[in-house]
Amino acid sequence: LVPAETSHVLAEKGNHRHFMEKEIHEQPEVMGRTVSHYVDAFENSVHEIAGLDFRAASRLIIVGCGTAAYAGEISRYWFGSLARLAVEVDIASEFRYRDPVFLPGDIALFISQSGETADTLEAMRLAAAAGVQTLALVNTPHSTIAREASLVVPTLAGPEIGVASTKAFTSQLSALACLAVLAGRHRGHLDRAQEAGHVASLLASPGLMVKALEREGEIEQLAHEIAGHPTVLYLGRNQNFPLALEAALKLKEISYIHAEGYAAGELKHGPIALIEEGLPVIVIAPHDALFDKTRSSIQQVASRGAHVIAITDPEGARALEGEAARIITLPKGSQLTNPLLFASAVQLLAYHVAVYKGTDVDQPRNLAKSVTVE
Amino acid sequence: LVPAETSHVLAEKGNHRHFMEKEIHEQPEVMGRTVSHYVDAFENSVHEIAGLDFRAASRLIIVGCGTAAYAGEISRYWFGSLARLAVEVDIASEFRYRDPVFLPGDIALFISQSGETADTLEAMRLAAAAGVQTLALVNTPHSTIAREASLVVPTLAGPEIGVASTKAFTSQLSALACLAVLAGRHRGHLDRAQEAGHVASLLASPGLMVKALEREGEIEQLAHEIAGHPTVLYLGRNQNFPLALEAALKLKEISYIHAEGYAAGELKHGPIALIEEGLPVIVIAPHDALFDKTRSSIQQVASRGAHVIAITDPEGARALEGEAARIITLPKGSQLTNPLLFASAVQLLAYHVAVYKGTDVDQPRNLAKSVTVE
Repeated sequence: LVPAETSHVLAEKGNHRHFMEKEIHEQPEVMGRTVSHYVDAFENSVHEIAGLDFRAASRLIIVGCGTAAYAGEISRYWFGSLARLAVEVDIASEFRYRDPVFLPGDIALFISQSGETADTLEAMRLAAAAGVQTLALVNTPHSTIAREASLVVPTLAGPEIGVASTKAFTSQLSALACLAVLAGRHRGHLDRAQEAGHVASLLASPGLMVKALEREGEIEQLAHEIAGHPTVLYLGRNQNFPLALEAALKLKEISYIHAEGYAAGELKHGPIALIEEGLPVIVIAPHDALFDKTRSSIQQVASRGAHVIAITDPEGARALEGEAARIITLPKGSQLTNPLLFASAVQLLAYHVAVYKGTDVDQPRNLAKSVTVE
Repeated sequence: LVPAETSHVLAEKGNHRHFMEKEIHEQPEVMGRTVSHYVDAFENSVHEIAGLDFRAASRLIIVGCGTAAYAGEISRYWFGSLARLAVEVDIASEFRYRDPVFLPGDIALFISQSGETADTLEAMRLAAAAGVQTLALVNTPHSTIAREASLVVPTLAGPEIGVASTKAFTSQLSALACLAVLAGRHRGHLDRAQEAGHVASLLASPGLMVKALEREGEIEQLAHEIAGHPTVLYLGRNQNFPLALEAALKLKEISYIHAEGYAAGELKHGPIALIEEGLPVIVIAPHDALFDKTRSSIQQVASRGAHVIAITDPEGARALEGEAARIITLPKGSQLTNPLLFASAVQLLAYHVAVYKGTDVDQPRNLAKSVTVE
């Protein structure tokens, strides 16, 4: 029998009001631990993983539920741009019942914090039965998904008690970022210097996350502004689109506000009709290659009366001065670390809305930590 | 110069209050016209399309915006199950900026009612530049997307005036269903009898749609029940998941209610926290292979106080008696025709909510019919 690893930590929230807040603040440590597992910090390179070879992969199929699926969707942009690897992401309850088509050379990755998510486990069994190599990205090494996978790629987040996933998510992203760099090297799309740059940015992420978390007081104030609204819209482009989905999920889960994430480029294809005076629209807007397009979305919704909260970095904050009603300025990250840093801000926002509303943050209504039945 | 095809019909709403209502009721005719273009109604077979060969296709990539993308997502289930063809669907504003990876043998299909959607056009140019065969599924044969594509697969919906797409959507689905049957034959996964069965069901869809539209009075009553709610949740599984997304989009566009579509299997991974007394939850629940799972979702949300409106067929209606607060019973369709029939119910629901609320149905706020700029 494997002893429950969570038992000895269950009791301790430290100085924090809730496990969720504690786990949000553990993220710098957790991200550092996970990245350290995958990289050589002296060489600034990613370790080889025995049995994992992306060279001949035709596609990477990523499957998970909820937050885990969104981590997969963010990494899709990384595998595409760093490794020129086609990625298909699906939610497990859909994947397992649509009789999915595999191509020769597909690799399939299954993401589950608990390693016991019922739909994800069955999706993995289906891929294994089709002869596909299965990777398990899990936080619990003795779980069923870990035991049955061809290969385990661990997250090292430690036990997560809050029902709404926080450090497990950023730990998944940290591991996925390392895998994307590895795939980039395997497939000849990253040279030594490029790999070193990506690894260095990942190694710097805990320090930047500490700084990002210092925005908590400010975010708490903004949380009070949106707590009274029945609906909220989150917008992002590219890798910030699935982060917008995750941000909305966090707010749904613990504050019960009906938040929805949307690709900013889809605004004019429908959701802009929702915009009216005072509707909170939270835009994930780092000053990246698509910043001007995201800025244009901000202008479009602001001009129609939306209460825009932009989450950005110092350069973005200067550009958005006077355009967004509120600006949260995070440290400047990289392509790989931005979603990690920006995740902390949307987690804190959801957390403080929930605290302000007085919901049961660590045990939100109707939800269980692990979904071990369908 | 090509004369504008819409001009002579612009003035005529007939007996209908709005173009949208007129276009909803044109769907039996439009679906029949589109299906007739693609099939031989005596042989119950799909015509070959010169230049289109799914035999060696590695994947079908489908790109569109808004409603067009949802039509693509529904067809993904068809191409998978009828033709064992891997399909990747993406929204155009994401696809074009994520530096997408193509595999040898990929075919790419671009869906746009107007044929002028800016992001879809640029996505198509990107695929063409990569040497990928490009198919245009458009409603306007002289449009830019039609002109630049390798091959045009037309919808024959006629001019659509209402900003919220209705008949263009079901016409896209009709054409996609025919293409999926063709792909199934090409790839050796449909025998003669199976092909004939699918084609016969498509040829029967206009008659079934007429019967589905007879539910309008009943749907109008239900619309009044949900018109006062700020948020609504739509649920579905498998091909009914993207239909739930489209249903939510329709309600957003014209009633300004913040509706969201969700995969029913994802309920326990977050959105079930939103369920509280009286929240309208609209479930697309035909009596198909996954009906029992959808029914279980209905029970879960109903037991937590949700006001469940189930859209189903006669067999499903019997099973859900006493479990869903309201039941809309549509005729029994097939795998290919169910989304078409069920689309009419969610269109009528959105339409009557909007009429009841007094919004500008044909010209909803902030929206344009064709999004020809980014």
